[in-house]
Amino acid sequence: MSQATGSQASAKSEPPATPAIADRYAAVRALSERLAEPLSAEDCAVQSMPDASPIKWHLAHTTWFYETFLLAQQPGYEEYSGDFRYLFNSYYNTVGQQFPRPKRGLMSRPGLGEVLAYRVYVDDAMRPLLAAADAQTERIVEVGLNHEQQHQELMLTDIKHALSCNPLLPAYEESEAARPAATSGGTGHSSAERPSFDWLNFDEGLREIGWAPGGEIGWAPGGAGGGFAFDNESPRHRTFCEAFALADRTVTCGEYLRFIEDGGYGRPGPWLSMGWAAVQEHGWRAPLYWFERDGAWHHYTLAGPRPVDPQQPVCHVSYFEADAYARWAGARLPTEAEWEVASPGLPSPGPFVDQLLAAGHAVHPGRAWEWTASQYTAYPGYQPPDGAMGEYNGKFMCNQFVLRGGSCATHSTHIRPTYRNFFPPDASWQFTGIRLAR
Amino acid sequence: MSQATGSQASAKSEPPATPAIADRYAAVRALSERLAEPLSAEDCAVQSMPDASPIKWHLAHTTWFYETFLLAQQPGYEEYSGDFRYLFNSYYNTVGQQFPRPKRGLMSRPGLGEVLAYRVYVDDAMRPLLAAADAQTERIVEVGLNHEQQHQELMLTDIKHALSCNPLLPAYEESEAARPAATSGGTGHSSAERPSFDWLNFDEGLREIGWAPGGEIGWAPGGAGGGFAFDNESPRHRTFCEAFALADRTVTCGEYLRFIEDGGYGRPGPWLSMGWAAVQEHGWRAPLYWFERDGAWHHYTLAGPRPVDPQQPVCHVSYFEADAYARWAGARLPTEAEWEVASPGLPSPGPFVDQLLAAGHAVHPGRAWEWTASQYTAYPGYQPPDGAMGEYNGKFMCNQFVLRGGSCATHSTHIRPTYRNFFPPDASWQFTGIRLAR
Amino acid sequence: MSQATGSQASAKSEPPATPAIADRYAAVRALSERLAEPLSAEDCAVQSMPDASPIKWHLAHTTWFYETFLLAQQPGYEEYSGDFRYLFNSYYNTVGQQFPRPKRGLMSRPGLGEVLAYRVYVDDAMRPLLAAADAQTERIVEVGLNHEQQHQELMLTDIKHALSCNPLLPAYEESEAARPAATSGGTGHSSAERPSFDWLNFDEGLREIGWAPGGEIGWAPGGAGGGFAFDNESPRHRTFCEAFALADRTVTCGEYLRFIEDGGYGRPGPWLSMGWAAVQEHGWRAPLYWFERDGAWHHYTLAGPRPVDPQQPVCHVSYFEADAYARWAGARLPTEAEWEVASPGLPSPGPFVDQLLAAGHAVHPGRAWEWTASQYTAYPGYQPPDGAMGEYNGKFMCNQFVLRGGSCATHSTHIRPTYRNFFPPDASWQFTGIRLAR
Amino acid sequence: MSQATGSQASAKSEPPATPAIADRYAAVRALSERLAEPLSAEDCAVQSMPDASPIKWHLAHTTWFYETFLLAQQPGYEEYSGDFRYLFNSYYNTVGQQFPRPKRGLMSRPGLGEVLAYRVYVDDAMRPLLAAADAQTERIVEVGLNHEQQHQELMLTDIKHALSCNPLLPAYEESEAARPAATSGGTGHSSAERPSFDWLNFDEGLREIGWAPGGEIGWAPGGAGGGFAFDNESPRHRTFCEAFALADRTVTCGEYLRFIEDGGYGRPGPWLSMGWAAVQEHGWRAPLYWFERDGAWHHYTLAGPRPVDPQQPVCHVSYFEADAYARWAGARLPTEAEWEVASPGLPSPGPFVDQLLAAGHAVHPGRAWEWTASQYTAYPGYQPPDGAMGEYNGKFMCNQFVLRGGSCATHSTHIRPTYRNFFPPDASWQFTGIRLAR
Repeated sequence: MSQATGSQASAKSEPPATPAIADRYAAVRALSERLAEPLSAEDCAVQSMPDASPIKWHLAHTTWFYETFLLAQQPGYEEYSGDFRYLFNSYYNTVGQQFPRPKRGLMSRPGLGEVLAYRVYVDDAMRPLLAAADAQTERIVEVGLNHEQQHQELMLTDIKHALSCNPLLPAYEESEAARPAATSGGTGHSSAERPSFDWLNFDEGLREIGWAPGGEIGWAPGGAGGGFAFDNESPRHRTFCEAFALADRTVTCGEYLRFIEDGGYGRPGPWLSMGWAAVQEHGWRAPLYWFERDGAWHHYTLAGPRPVDPQQPVCHVSYFEADAYARWAGARLPTEAEWEVASPGLPSPGPFVDQLLAAGHAVHPGRAWEWTASQYTAYPGYQPPDGAMGEYNGKFMCNQFVLRGGSCATHSTHIRPTYRNFFPPDASWQFTGIRLAR
Repeated sequence: MSQATGSQASAKSEPPATPAIADRYAAVRALSERLAEPLSAEDCAVQSMPDASPIKWHLAHTTWFYETFLLAQQPGYEEYSGDFRYLFNSYYNTVGQQFPRPKRGLMSRPGLGEVLAYRVYVDDAMRPLLAAADAQTERIVEVGLNHEQQHQELMLTDIKHALSCNPLLPAYEESEAARPAATSGGTGHSSAERPSFDWLNFDEGLREIGWAPGGEIGWAPGGAGGGFAFDNESPRHRTFCEAFALADRTVTCGEYLRFIEDGGYGRPGPWLSMGWAAVQEHGWRAPLYWFERDGAWHHYTLAGPRPVDPQQPVCHVSYFEADAYARWAGARLPTEAEWEVASPGLPSPGPFVDQLLAAGHAVHPGRAWEWTASQYTAYPGYQPPDGAMGEYNGKFMCNQFVLRGGSCATHSTHIRPTYRNFFPPDASWQFTGIRLAR
Repeated sequence: MSQATGSQASAKSEPPATPAIADRYAAVRALSERLAEPLSAEDCAVQSMPDASPIKWHLAHTTWFYETFLLAQQPGYEEYSGDFRYLFNSYYNTVGQQFPRPKRGLMSRPGLGEVLAYRVYVDDAMRPLLAAADAQTERIVEVGLNHEQQHQELMLTDIKHALSCNPLLPAYEESEAARPAATSGGTGHSSAERPSFDWLNFDEGLREIGWAPGGEIGWAPGGAGGGFAFDNESPRHRTFCEAFALADRTVTCGEYLRFIEDGGYGRPGPWLSMGWAAVQEHGWRAPLYWFERDGAWHHYTLAGPRPVDPQQPVCHVSYFEADAYARWAGARLPTEAEWEVASPGLPSPGPFVDQLLAAGHAVHPGRAWEWTASQYTAYPGYQPPDGAMGEYNGKFMCNQFVLRGGSCATHSTHIRPTYRNFFPPDASWQFTGIRLAR
Repeated sequence: MSQATGSQASAKSEPPATPAIADRYAAVRALSERLAEPLSAEDCAVQSMPDASPIKWHLAHTTWFYETFLLAQQPGYEEYSGDFRYLFNSYYNTVGQQFPRPKRGLMSRPGLGEVLAYRVYVDDAMRPLLAAADAQTERIVEVGLNHEQQHQELMLTDIKHALSCNPLLPAYEESEAARPAATSGGTGHSSAERPSFDWLNFDEGLREIGWAPGGEIGWAPGGAGGGFAFDNESPRHRTFCEAFALADRTVTCGEYLRFIEDGGYGRPGPWLSMGWAAVQEHGWRAPLYWFERDGAWHHYTLAGPRPVDPQQPVCHVSYFEADAYARWAGARLPTEAEWEVASPGLPSPGPFVDQLLAAGHAVHPGRAWEWTASQYTAYPGYQPPDGAMGEYNGKFMCNQFVLRGGSCATHSTHIRPTYRNFFPPDASWQFTGIRLAR
């Protein structure tokens, strides 16, 4: 195991007992509806770019999953609507035709009300199934719940993008908006710069990364070795790491502002060739959602427009920006292996979305996914599972970069140190930030 | 005046007394809301292409017109919302910035409820103004009402396009859908071909066309010479017409089918060069909304999918298709001057949208705008009115073709023989058909 | 005939005897090669935009015309190459497949040398045919020669555009470049503004326009009534003109500069809606080929970069710019009927390209085509000729505006008052200028 | 070191003495001109897609390199032309502005003749410099020569693409075209299938890959440990490899045909998500340059169209195709580490372009680059060199896949086992093939 020198000891709490599958199902399903609650039917229908989907579509597609992969196999089950099989399929090519993704915003019907009724119908049909679930059923339900949790994060990032396109810059949820949650390690002094970070040093050596049943590493409840992981986290395997160091916190808005003020967006030097092309094509000059008003930087948040707080972690940067910032700062981004090796020594993560909601806070940038230097590819010996669900992860191993760690929009029961998120290098509508390595 | 030889005498009914402006205002406003009634908030938010607008936007923009050009000039009037000035402006460049047209579908807020409240607010404020309206006010109200009537037609054509993009092909309004209104001159025998048309012949001569106050031509109530016309219909002027003939009815679906079956969409011969390019780029092989199911042609209508009725007028053809059909048929399209000269001798028009609704019919293709061979340009001596409203018509005199006659989505009090509608030659989402000339 | 009041009498010279068809053929063919002479093989291969063609392609396509429509019908004729039939066809859909237009610049082979050999081969084969030409042959040759003259103008405008894309801004022909030809009516004082223009007034009345065999109007040798006109100039027909006035000269660069300096390109007011969109999309802020260097306006010409001379006619403006300028100047563009009615009273035209070359001058903006307000459409009773050549003009009667008068790149034997040139409203790479009307 | 079980012993020949830098300079420079020899000036000017460049540009840009990085630093050196600094820069952002890449085909001037004169001018100026070269100069010349060798390969692949766009499908070089070089291991029986391949097995273990000065691995003259390598091949470092097996030859056309015939291009199953999108967008149904004629597959080669030989290695496949084929075949692509570890045990490579030319053969698909499963990224501890030349490799570490081994268009003195070529996953105009791993 790697040695974290100079790290704060991270207090590992006892992982809570995994809830019975029926309870877990109920909890996950309820959260999706909770996330849609502040929104009107019209809000739930908007699609602001091809990469995003309407909230209504997320609510239906996550439901379609259980119907398609579980209920449809039950004798006597009558599907809610023959059309939904087509309308709410996404990338599952083996399950049949799909409605074209960029046109999801055109589907005014079925309306939100009917989609919610569809959820109730499927949940009702799931109840007996869950009560008598065998291992195989449990496994599929678990995939479905993790799948839904992924879509819950997308619901927040997609609606943020959609509302940000509205010139009124409306809040997703106003309540408590004035009191964003403190980030982990927040210092309390609001106007001053955050103190400089420390480097956590790690020796060279042959390490193991990736998920394996029964293992016991990681900080998150149900982490590596716990009950569930996606196919792309396996197999656990050896990799050789040279000695490296990781920053003990992520880059702040204040630090990033110095990159901006130094003309970072104005010259090709720090950028990858494709990154510089993206800067010029899109006219980037700050992270997504940042804008200047009365001479000061603000950003659009789910609680509406807010001044940028220099002490907060910078968020909504693309890989290109993260990489350019790191080069400008004389450092680099960590590889995903380094990140995973270091993870036991990193400060405790969070707060995650469930923790924010429980505390009555708005979902505000804070905890952010961390871009790694690793392009998303298969682990040695990776085998995609058979059948439609096998299409899930292996299909996207191209032109994407791995992110680690989770964000303020991730559920705490969804994340673990072996978790591999991935997005194209120009994407910035997710809650994505920067941790330096060297 | 031109002589229609061979025409049926067109019974001109006495034009009804123009209702007082307040009553007319109430009636027009009510129809907009009536047209939105069958739709959900989500239906009203969809924008299916840049040329179309969401229903909600139509409802707000037509209201914005009265607020901007009338109420805002009243001392003490407090506008409903400062944002709406920007959000619901369209092409009125002189009134300030506009929200980009192709993004209207992203505006989930203000919601439909708030837009309806905005309508009530403005209607309340308009009431005293209408009660004491001077001539100038009446003139602006009249422009606003005609403007709103134009948007009412767009509401029907835009929602038809939006719903047609939904794979469920939902009906806009189901009631009475099974009994589409008979078209004028319908023969009653449903399975047979409609009998061939007659040519109406007109002598050569110097003619007058265009609108002039006090004139008395035309079949429609409030027609040429009535109280109102758009700037682009003036001035009334002389034009020389060679002898010509016009078909006494528009082309039917059955006739158009023979063009399709003859390979009309498969070879460049009958097409304009740009038209043939459009056929290939868009993959046209039939009018918009037509599709084959079980070996028979169907089309999507506001009452849902229906078999194509060979006796019905063909509808939803672009100028390119109208022009190609005419060439294939050994004829041509009429010029707008010919059309207007001939109009007193044409069979009585309609039914129009108010007549359909009053009779409990669905708005079904029947009466259709008729493409003319005339590119849309200014009449000799045309002067756009001063100020913002002057932007209206003159700005678009480029790359558009004139349509005449009105459609099943036009209000009977909105149309007259001098009326010049105009659309680009590849547009087919309006109710547009074909009348042959030679 | 229309009366030009206030016009200078235009001295009509005796039209020269039409040369025998063989001589005329030789002269036209020689000019094409003369125009290619200053260019390298590489210059002749470049295609700088889809609307333009390589010089080599023009040289081959004009040759293909005679081979396809004349030689291929001769018994025993062996075509130069089976491939050329496909490679050098343009819009003649009835003659078979075409090589895609935007890819003409990719055809490095056949090389310029082989294309010139192809010209010699076809010219050799044409010689006996011309010596014994019957009327039908002469007619087709005449079409071919006029077709080639059109392409000669395109050779100059296309190569100008291509060379303007080269950052070296090389001259097409340096010789005599320093001495651009004086424009007709040039005043001789070079630094001062050109004196203001006069209005030529014309009475209202029923006029005849268009070409008819045997007629005798017009200033150009071989003009209306002469031996040849394109199909789109017929039939000669009556049209009613209101009283109007035309400027007695075209707009100068100095006058146009005042439009620029008044912010004409910076606000939507003077522009058509589509024109303003074009300004914003393309970033137009001056006519094509204009650029600022050391604080002064220059333009790229076929003799290389030159300072803009305020007394010269403005050139390389699109219809949108011409229309906006006219509106800004409180005037309008003439209709094509007005232009043709007025033409006998306009100052003598030219110099044309043959006259410039004969005088040893560079082809420099001077005489420019004049945009009219008329969208390009068929004259009443227009019949496209049968067969492949009939595709020529009628196919393009859509979204184009008519230009009249000819340019410094037009041959004097090609032009006449009834001549209808046409281009889309955003095109400015032709030699196109502005004459005001009111 | 890894053990190749079941491999043929690869006879390593004694590496020839590295030629003196002046001789090597002369040889490399001469080859560029040799490659342009069969081409006309027009051929050398064509740019058939944004990713490709005209031959003339390659000839000039490789020359610009020596002028910019060596001659311009010499006191008293007068540059050939001030414009060339701008015209022939490519991605070297630090050296100033660049002429936009997709417009290189518009530069008809300077002509090929002048570019060749530029080469002579620079070569003349280089001669004294080379005669007295210090180590630093030699290092830069060496970079320049390797840079020129890369462009020599691009010259062949770019002109192949350009000529393939010509419907005449002309040969780059006809001579000897009928006798393509036999590929290594060619069996001689032309109509039969090639015998099945063997798997070379390699044990798991911690391996070293990458280039280091003084090392001695590899089959190619001047290979790893030799005098030169690109920055991206360093540092040599440890990596852990699981046990793996590599095919002892690359996939043949005949084998690939079975993938085609099995409907490989017709269903999403074997494809990455982005790969399947590329298949549909571009209409791929076979490797680039393949076409059917008279029921048989042919491909365009530099010697013109040829029937596809089932025994030849398949070539001109994209990463997407290589990856899909491997999945269809129940195997996978090797990682670049596996490839490099295995390289000493692979059959002897080649023939390379210099060997083909020396033997009088056409440059025909045979030896092909081999796609690896590794996305192109920095080796641990990678440091881009300072200055403009440092822009070279690190800038492109994004959305590219690594290729190994060299092709029939690579020079034998340019290639080594540590060499990392890289292209985007949809590129197929390079000579790229497939080797299976498992």
